[in-house]
Amino acid sequence: MRAQVSKKALNEGVGMLERIIPARNSNPLLTALKVDATERGLTLSGTNLEIDLSCFVAAEVNEQAAFVVPAHLFAQIVRNLGGELVELEHSGNELAVRAGGSEFKLQTGDLSAYPPLSFPDHVDTTLDAAELAKALSSVRYAASNEAFQAVFRGIKLEYRGGQARVIASDGFRLALRDFAAHGDGQNLILPARSADELVRVLRDGEVRLAYGEGALGVTTDRVRMNVKLMDGDFPDYERVIPRDIKLQVRLQAAALKEAVSRVAVLADKNANNRVEFLVSEGTLRLATEGDYGRAQDTLTVEQAGDEPAMSLGFNAKYVLDALGPIDGAAELLFSGSTSPAMFRAVEGGGYLAVVVPLRV
Amino acid sequence: MRAQVSKKALNEGVGMLERIIPARNSNPLLTALKVDATERGLTLSGTNLEIDLSCFVAAEVNEQAAFVVPAHLFAQIVRNLGGELVELEHSGNELAVRAGGSEFKLQTGDLSAYPPLSFPDHVDTTLDAAELAKALSSVRYAASNEAFQAVFRGIKLEYRGGQARVIASDGFRLALRDFAAHGDGQNLILPARSADELVRVLRDGEVRLAYGEGALGVTTDRVRMNVKLMDGDFPDYERVIPRDIKLQVRLQAAALKEAVSRVAVLADKNANNRVEFLVSEGTLRLATEGDYGRAQDTLTVEQAGDEPAMSLGFNAKYVLDALGPIDGAAELLFSGSTSPAMFRAVEGGGYLAVVVPLRV
Repeated sequence: MRAQVSKKALNEGVGMLERIIPARNSNPLLTALKVDATERGLTLSGTNLEIDLSCFVAAEVNEQAAFVVPAHLFAQIVRNLGGELVELEHSGNELAVRAGGSEFKLQTGDLSAYPPLSFPDHVDTTLDAAELAKALSSVRYAASNEAFQAVFRGIKLEYRGGQARVIASDGFRLALRDFAAHGDGQNLILPARSADELVRVLRDGEVRLAYGEGALGVTTDRVRMNVKLMDGDFPDYERVIPRDIKLQVRLQAAALKEAVSRVAVLADKNANNRVEFLVSEGTLRLATEGDYGRAQDTLTVEQAGDEPAMSLGFNAKYVLDALGPIDGAAELLFSGSTSPAMFRAVEGGGYLAVVVPLRV
Repeated sequence: MRAQVSKKALNEGVGMLERIIPARNSNPLLTALKVDATERGLTLSGTNLEIDLSCFVAAEVNEQAAFVVPAHLFAQIVRNLGGELVELEHSGNELAVRAGGSEFKLQTGDLSAYPPLSFPDHVDTTLDAAELAKALSSVRYAASNEAFQAVFRGIKLEYRGGQARVIASDGFRLALRDFAAHGDGQNLILPARSADELVRVLRDGEVRLAYGEGALGVTTDRVRMNVKLMDGDFPDYERVIPRDIKLQVRLQAAALKEAVSRVAVLADKNANNRVEFLVSEGTLRLATEGDYGRAQDTLTVEQAGDEPAMSLGFNAKYVLDALGPIDGAAELLFSGSTSPAMFRAVEGGGYLAVVVPLRV
């Protein structure tokens, strides 16, 4: 088999797969990238057993062939190639890669032992790719990377009549984002790490979803993906969203982020980086205290609500995470010193964060 | 003591000291930054016992004072401050830092226990700061960070009648750079890690050197530095510089760097990343071979010298390091398959690298 392919396109495709395919694995087969050459071009695929990914690269191909190559070496070779056009030639158990004055002879692996990857052909529902990516990115921080309870390492996607919602929580905080959906679909839980990879391949246009056995098929114009889903029940998150708001303040999210970062330097690392929020008379005073001294910062805010003043302690990192997806003005909604607080954008946009205050 | 100081200037000064002062040390005193306030401004100083550094920041100060603060915390606080002007107020064992709506109260340390730092007042010789920085940066890679023999962790500065030269070697390769000097000075060996810090504080203008007891005093317009020197004899490096050049090639340094990086992907990590250089008939062919396959790259070169062809093996990393400081066209001078090779810029510039080929 001989193929002529654009270096840029090949590099993009291989680069996406390189992220998924493990560099080292107790099963070396999993470190391989599979190439299927047909007259239309090259289909590159790989898996980490959580995600199967496949992407198509247009190429001039003289005959059908299929082979596997060490993914990370192949990616490095392609990335460093000079020129615009790459020639691939597969024969026996060797792949030649040629471009400019360079030639690489790469040993191919055992194709027959490579696990079969199959991607669903049907479409159950569609979402806007950019909206889904934005929603997943906005709530990702609230999912845990280590939590003992698996479900806290997941992001839930649910449908709510014309709207889709993604939700993540690690038990101490919660983030959700609503966005418009065409029609309805199945509720499901994606591993947060798989959501990270999904976000990376989503661009503009439509993303097509197909429901399979414990897996979600995802198709865009560029790639096909199978993502293993998580079992189990996502916690009843709605009950932690406070309904009875006693005090609310508005201020620029950027100013609050800066001030929290500033005073957090002196916060006590052994006391959850506690930063005190004291609201009264149109000001928000932030205060921290630790082994080396203490800090405070005073911000002017628009204040509303029945309570004239309130004092709450937060983990500085949680506040910064919650404010992360908010541009422009932010709204902080307090329901009491020890009750969950909400952070959201004044301009809306479907994003909401809930943070539980630290105990006194 | 109260002082008004520009945030930018304070941040720059504290930032330089933050690099030197250890974040953690078995002697916590060493993690402190010392502030001496006089009517002219603030002198900030610190040490890591290898380097003492001091820098002056203009400020409006109402009375003399001296105190020590935790360096890295103070640096973080200053960096995050809003506004353009900072107010410092020292009283008792507390330093208040105020800017915009923020106030920090930082506990000061035990001034009496802080080691006295003194910087020489005299000047023995001067060098161009930018030239010295460029020379040190060019040869730094050739000094070892771990070598058993201490002298290989140093960079030698020597004077050669109107010229200064810096030399570094780890026993396997050598780099040197000559540059113009005003007059003469003492030969000395700087620890390479201290040279890294020296490079960071050098800008334009003149650098004034003062020779002390086992130490070099360095003064620029912005900072004063004391650098501990290394004892011992630097190896007689001139004998490894080949005199009898049998074959030489010219080509663009960038093209060679790219080609070496490219083929090095398949080089054998367990065989010193060996890349074969084969020169003949106006071409340089690079070839590597490893567990996963083999690679080659062919470059057109200008070839000269008595030998019509030569084959040498190099550690790819050493070749890339040696080419690093060369812009434009490079000249490779070979004295035999097993004799040291030289790499230098065609345009000159005083830089020379010597790399010993790998054995067959």
